[in-house]
Amino acid sequence: MKGTTSRTELLIRIDRAAGVPVRQQLERELRAAVQSGRLPAGTALPSTRAFAQDLALSRGVVVEAYEQLLAEGYLRARRGSGTRVAPHRRINTLPPVEEPQAAPPRYDFRPGLPDLRLFPRRSWGASVRRVLATAPDDALDYPDARGVACARASLAAYLNRARATVAGADRVVFCNGSSQGINLLCRVLRDRGVRRIAVEDPGHADQCTDIRSLGLDTPGIPVDSNGLSVERLSRLDVGAVLVTAAHQYPTGAVLTAKRRTALLEWAARRGAILIEDDYDAEYRYDREAIGALQGMAPDRVAYVGSASKVLSPALRLGWLVLPPELVPAVSEAKRHEDRGCPALEQLVFADFLERGGFDRHLRRTREEYRRRRNTLANALSRHLPHVKVRGVAAGLHVMLELDTSVDETAVVAAAASRSIRVYGARAYYAKPAAAPPALVVGYGGLRGTDIPEAVRQLADVLAGHAKRVKRTSSVKVSSAT
Amino acid sequence: MKGTTSRTELLIRIDRAAGVPVRQQLERELRAAVQSGRLPAGTALPSTRAFAQDLALSRGVVVEAYEQLLAEGYLRARRGSGTRVAPHRRINTLPPVEEPQAAPPRYDFRPGLPDLRLFPRRSWGASVRRVLATAPDDALDYPDARGVACARASLAAYLNRARATVAGADRVVFCNGSSQGINLLCRVLRDRGVRRIAVEDPGHADQCTDIRSLGLDTPGIPVDSNGLSVERLSRLDVGAVLVTAAHQYPTGAVLTAKRRTALLEWAARRGAILIEDDYDAEYRYDREAIGALQGMAPDRVAYVGSASKVLSPALRLGWLVLPPELVPAVSEAKRHEDRGCPALEQLVFADFLERGGFDRHLRRTREEYRRRRNTLANALSRHLPHVKVRGVAAGLHVMLELDTSVDETAVVAAAASRSIRVYGARAYYAKPAAAPPALVVGYGGLRGTDIPEAVRQLADVLAGHAKRVKRTSSVKVSSAT
Repeated sequence: MKGTTSRTELLIRIDRAAGVPVRQQLERELRAAVQSGRLPAGTALPSTRAFAQDLALSRGVVVEAYEQLLAEGYLRARRGSGTRVAPHRRINTLPPVEEPQAAPPRYDFRPGLPDLRLFPRRSWGASVRRVLATAPDDALDYPDARGVACARASLAAYLNRARATVAGADRVVFCNGSSQGINLLCRVLRDRGVRRIAVEDPGHADQCTDIRSLGLDTPGIPVDSNGLSVERLSRLDVGAVLVTAAHQYPTGAVLTAKRRTALLEWAARRGAILIEDDYDAEYRYDREAIGALQGMAPDRVAYVGSASKVLSPALRLGWLVLPPELVPAVSEAKRHEDRGCPALEQLVFADFLERGGFDRHLRRTREEYRRRRNTLANALSRHLPHVKVRGVAAGLHVMLELDTSVDETAVVAAAASRSIRVYGARAYYAKPAAAPPALVVGYGGLRGTDIPEAVRQLADVLAGHAKRVKRTSSVKVSSAT
Repeated sequence: MKGTTSRTELLIRIDRAAGVPVRQQLERELRAAVQSGRLPAGTALPSTRAFAQDLALSRGVVVEAYEQLLAEGYLRARRGSGTRVAPHRRINTLPPVEEPQAAPPRYDFRPGLPDLRLFPRRSWGASVRRVLATAPDDALDYPDARGVACARASLAAYLNRARATVAGADRVVFCNGSSQGINLLCRVLRDRGVRRIAVEDPGHADQCTDIRSLGLDTPGIPVDSNGLSVERLSRLDVGAVLVTAAHQYPTGAVLTAKRRTALLEWAARRGAILIEDDYDAEYRYDREAIGALQGMAPDRVAYVGSASKVLSPALRLGWLVLPPELVPAVSEAKRHEDRGCPALEQLVFADFLERGGFDRHLRRTREEYRRRRNTLANALSRHLPHVKVRGVAAGLHVMLELDTSVDETAVVAAAASRSIRVYGARAYYAKPAAAPPALVVGYGGLRGTDIPEAVRQLADVLAGHAKRVKRTSSVKVSSAT
């Protein structure tokens, strides 16, 4: 049974079978009419008596609906002139939601992402169920700004065991991914007077932009096959350095023991903080992972990690392990920013860690990525025998050094025209124009069975662009980087 | 079968039955010994041959373990002097984890928190299961910085329906709770030249501190029983104002229709942004909720909301609905800060909204809180008949105005000594010393059956502190605030 009225050219629909109180329906219809401009400012509304009659409603219902909209400011009542639409209402139209979705390329060599098809949905779900069934009610309160205590303890135990850190729950701060961790830390360092934070060049361009947007200067330190040049670093006046020691991003270099020692010595001498971004250290294929720098100087190194490269970046599970003197300020910065990370997710992660789900997932995915890495290395060695490949020993990507005569941008574009997405290394350099041409080739998202054909097609693309062929070295799978 | 060695006063345990490769065990034991200081800098390690013999391991295993620790910088090898613990290693001891937990008070009148016992664990869990079973793999990728598109659409539809907003998915930004939303917004306004953001006085003290820590000035605007004084606001030179229109925090006042209109007019004239913190508008007991200001001026109002007061603050699910011109800058600020909020949680929330779980939870909890509110009002009317109670019509707390002769701090302390936690209103004022004595009394976390006794005991406490008795008004449950 529906009632309508058209007294003011306005269609009001009341549906008595809708299960929504008629007064609410009336209010919503009137409000929507004002918002959309169907009822312009100044329009006189029917008297409550007439309107009620039109709609076959009791007059009280119309009176209450008018009162509600008067209280909200949509209507205005003046003695003598009845109820009218309040002035200065304008038409609020929403543009249609447009979320353009480009068709995915046939082959996407995107780096920095694990294979999302491998996410352990079942065991993660089991942890969610256990947490929802067993977590005490106060776990649903505002969390400690650093994160839930037991989750911090589980994470610290994992990191001490698997990454050779020296971590305790009281030094851990959960963050929205490693990016927020680095941001909070740099904000605290800035507030302590640090003006410059050195970064690797090439390095993680997005992080660098973030740090600069905090008003800090980010001098770039060259990276070679032994990792960050500590000698170049020591000539600079910086308060901290952001370093990917275990597996440099994007070159894949491992910081040598000599440089690790030199870096720690420099930091101690300079009173500087080392920000260690341990972004994909769990994936090392030919021997055990290199332990974190943090374990050698926990009072000097701020360790940054996340579940993004092992599980999924959509979880936004990141963490800091901090020198004790930085814990209060960073916790306070986190509290100011957002009062802490989602607590249930931390509890689920802790359950997943405690029950061995994380270790099992790591073992399984490490084997899978090792196979893909081998397939990739073999395909590169077959189709691109003269291209130097860096960073084969670890992580989810390699770097292909192109001949200096090759136009990197043109290669990327030519590949795109064949529905192959590759990523130029130029974007990772402080001075892109001066960067040697190279490609960052991720294999986390490619199916193993697709890799040979993807590489063959990429080789076709490169064949059309390489004028001179570099003959310096060929691809080998070895424990070197 | 276990092997140990004590050659350097160092106990190394190797457990062949542990399921962990012996080389890894050896590395970990040695690393831990260096980290803990059991093996001080300069200590000579046994030769690989002797050590292997001691531990009944193959020499190759010891060689590999030494190589790993050499690569990590824990050890140092010099021709002629063998392998030694690297210098400048100091003892890294972690202080014991201390998480002091005060015993909870018998009665806690904490405001700003829903009853965590009512969290819909079962239906939330069902949504998690559905999402894990059905979400496409690319939902596990980095999210759009604003949040997952379909979750933004579900939220916009809910807000339009329940809060009378004019929202579309493209104007929504998910944040870590409303605090992060306000922070990001204020940061963007600051970067656009805004220097002062007006806040309500009394108002949300934490938000105010956050805004000031961004380097902004926060002039306080007085609040009376009609809400924020727009007249006082219009005398100030501010670029934005933070307002709790539907239910002022902490006084519980509802901004009158006249002031809503005046506020919108002021903002339009001034070119200012209204930041509407719609923090607990869903809980209104005696009639329908007041629609959001945003619906009347979506290009002028930045709407802030969260699931903290309806579901749980531990979810950290907050959101902004922005004027179109602010969307790009705020999205970019969010991307810089943390690359977006956890995606799975947004999908779970969207499922929960779409399937009516949120509406059902609201109906159920609104009924429950209405009963508690009635019980509280009755108990106050019985035990504290002469105390004026504000904000009875909505939300999860009321404000008790004490006689001006009463020492608020002393009352709070006296209550605490009887294991009753009450919250002085002073902390919400810009000038606490000049604030009239009052208590903010939350009933979200109190069991309905406990309320009468809790109020009786609170009345006892107050009886010992009230010198003169204020007789201005008595408690009534009505649709007025």
